[in-house]
Amino acid sequence: MPGIKDATAVVGIGQTPFAKQLPESEKTLACRAILAALDDAGIAPSEVDGLASYTMEETDEVEVAKAVGLGDLTFFSKVGYGGGGGGGAPAPPPPPPPPPLATGQATVGVAWRSRKRGSGPRPWKNTAVQLPTPAQWTRPFGLLRPADEIGMLARRYMHEYGATRDHLFNVALACRNRANQNPAAMMYERPLTREMYMTSRWISEPLCLFDNCLETDGALACVIVSAERARDCRQRPVYVHSAAQGLPAQHHGMVNYWNDDPLTGPAWTAARHLWKHADFTPDDVDVAQIYDAFTPLIPLSLEGYGFCGRGEGAAYTEGGALEIGGRLPLNTGGGGLSEAYVHGFNLINEGVKQLRGTSTAQVPGAATCLVTAGEGVPTSAILLRN
Amino acid sequence: MPGIKDATAVVGIGQTPFAKQLPESEKTLACRAILAALDDAGIAPSEVDGLASYTMEETDEVEVAKAVGLGDLTFFSKVGYGGGGGGGAPAPPPPPPPPPLATGQATVGVAWRSRKRGSGPRPWKNTAVQLPTPAQWTRPFGLLRPADEIGMLARRYMHEYGATRDHLFNVALACRNRANQNPAAMMYERPLTREMYMTSRWISEPLCLFDNCLETDGALACVIVSAERARDCRQRPVYVHSAAQGLPAQHHGMVNYWNDDPLTGPAWTAARHLWKHADFTPDDVDVAQIYDAFTPLIPLSLEGYGFCGRGEGAAYTEGGALEIGGRLPLNTGGGGLSEAYVHGFNLINEGVKQLRGTSTAQVPGAATCLVTAGEGVPTSAILLRN
Repeated sequence: MPGIKDATAVVGIGQTPFAKQLPESEKTLACRAILAALDDAGIAPSEVDGLASYTMEETDEVEVAKAVGLGDLTFFSKVGYGGGGGGGAPAPPPPPPPPPLATGQATVGVAWRSRKRGSGPRPWKNTAVQLPTPAQWTRPFGLLRPADEIGMLARRYMHEYGATRDHLFNVALACRNRANQNPAAMMYERPLTREMYMTSRWISEPLCLFDNCLETDGALACVIVSAERARDCRQRPVYVHSAAQGLPAQHHGMVNYWNDDPLTGPAWTAARHLWKHADFTPDDVDVAQIYDAFTPLIPLSLEGYGFCGRGEGAAYTEGGALEIGGRLPLNTGGGGLSEAYVHGFNLINEGVKQLRGTSTAQVPGAATCLVTAGEGVPTSAILLRN
Repeated sequence: MPGIKDATAVVGIGQTPFAKQLPESEKTLACRAILAALDDAGIAPSEVDGLASYTMEETDEVEVAKAVGLGDLTFFSKVGYGGGGGGGAPAPPPPPPPPPLATGQATVGVAWRSRKRGSGPRPWKNTAVQLPTPAQWTRPFGLLRPADEIGMLARRYMHEYGATRDHLFNVALACRNRANQNPAAMMYERPLTREMYMTSRWISEPLCLFDNCLETDGALACVIVSAERARDCRQRPVYVHSAAQGLPAQHHGMVNYWNDDPLTGPAWTAARHLWKHADFTPDDVDVAQIYDAFTPLIPLSLEGYGFCGRGEGAAYTEGGALEIGGRLPLNTGGGGLSEAYVHGFNLINEGVKQLRGTSTAQVPGAATCLVTAGEGVPTSAILLRN
């Protein structure tokens, strides 16, 4: 059976500014990011024949295609989660799945995410809406926001494995340090100290302000083509070496504390598939962009993706392991915690920058990068290489 | 580049009863259809690792996976249109895209559609909702329902090419005749005559009652596996020979009378890709399941998919061409017009039945079948063979 291994490559990336409030509409931001990515690739809009998007994305394919001036599309698909049909919980979009390009369903694919959560509404503030299952069983008990659900998971993790707030601080600090190197990051000129972290207000105990991602207006996009076509593009190709989604059996969404083992979530499922179809292992990963809506997702994902054993994720963060020069430099643009929170799409583009050698916090000689979507919700991951 | 040609096969189909009103929820109906399809295939729910669905489908993957008891999923994706993000217009789901199976992203895939439009709400009756674009420009002028939009397209087609109501009747009659052979069809014991057709009430002139699809509560599902795995299944495999989606440049949705040429829609785009990757041509198709939310979509699709030339679709329906024994037996289970309207999914399952030789209106020796989604909206099509 033909696989997807190195069959496709990212050849263009684009983004808008990131801010708490931007004047343009989500649709306008989406189009700007897509045009920037196509320009980066040196590919005309009329050559695009495939679109990959998210069920939570508000700007639909017809609107994007018309406004940007795309060609005849022969592939368009959306990935769910978070929240669209589930429980209103914001969660990451999986990176764009490359199979349609690997099988010839399309030749030039564009994926994008545009979001105005910086200035937009908070879904949990409308108490008059009919709550979906399982939210109707949990919100009356105070689990109103994703932070509350992940807070509960974090407390369990701390209880089971002796993780501390210092471990969560290690994650927040690594992301903030990288944002301090990245002029496009919302937290560019705002260093973080341990004292600031330890004395900040709770958002949902044990999660403080700095354990939570930013709220951002902004959009990003990338262009994917077949490996063959990639050789003719303006940019150095970044190949999709392996890709996987994960939704484990009997999964309950972010409230999966109902499961016997709530600490092994969708990342484990995606990881098994990802590594099974890869030529390398976690030890070979030079740099990682791991979805960080909340700091506890990092130790959980480090375990899920096999960088360490079960229960060892917190300790893994010690001694500067996630900093440049550490064992696994993390979220080198600043991530959702400190660059921008656009449902994780900035992690894809930062992974591409690392393998092009153009990151603002470049890992010397980076040749392989893992990019993941969230842990705790139906997820996905891609392995990039150059 | 590896293609999808014959790389996957449908090995299981399932459905619930079809009725104007069923007591079960959409979720329950979805699960019943999926379990029936898995039972037909002889595959345990725990073996399923891929799901293909629709943005309009109300039952999401987490709910289905939990209730049916599926395994760890490594692929899940949704296809948009109709309507979810567009304009509230009901439109067909494209048939399930096989690439994830062709590339090993999953090994056992399930696609389904569950819908309670027979007893459920009519989206256009709530005049208080904020209308999306372009509906906000058209509804104030009376284009309230899909029937109104397609009625306008039909009038243009009649004006341009001399099509008559008798041509539309040919379509309605062929579907009704097949439903009269199919005990599962909602119109099983209700024959149609030309007098009934010609004297029925307008729904949206020139479309009368019998030019419009049924309103149905019901669900369907199918199981798709790799061609290799298909050899070990209980049922004779029905291979997906070619597949394509279509969303042409500068498309406007069902209101594409804004285009210079509104009568060449998404079917043309999908057809070009479909035939380009196929070993056979329209002349080789033994039986067709063409999306029939409204009768005029059939002549338009006959042209789009190359069964006849531009403007010749109406004349093509003459002389019993769409009946059993005719040039192209159509919608042999009764279609959306007379079996059930579950967004076209029954066309997929009927195509499989034809190639298994188990249709209630079997075309002798049928070896190839075209199944299409709607014309006028972003669409898709698959070529099946045995």
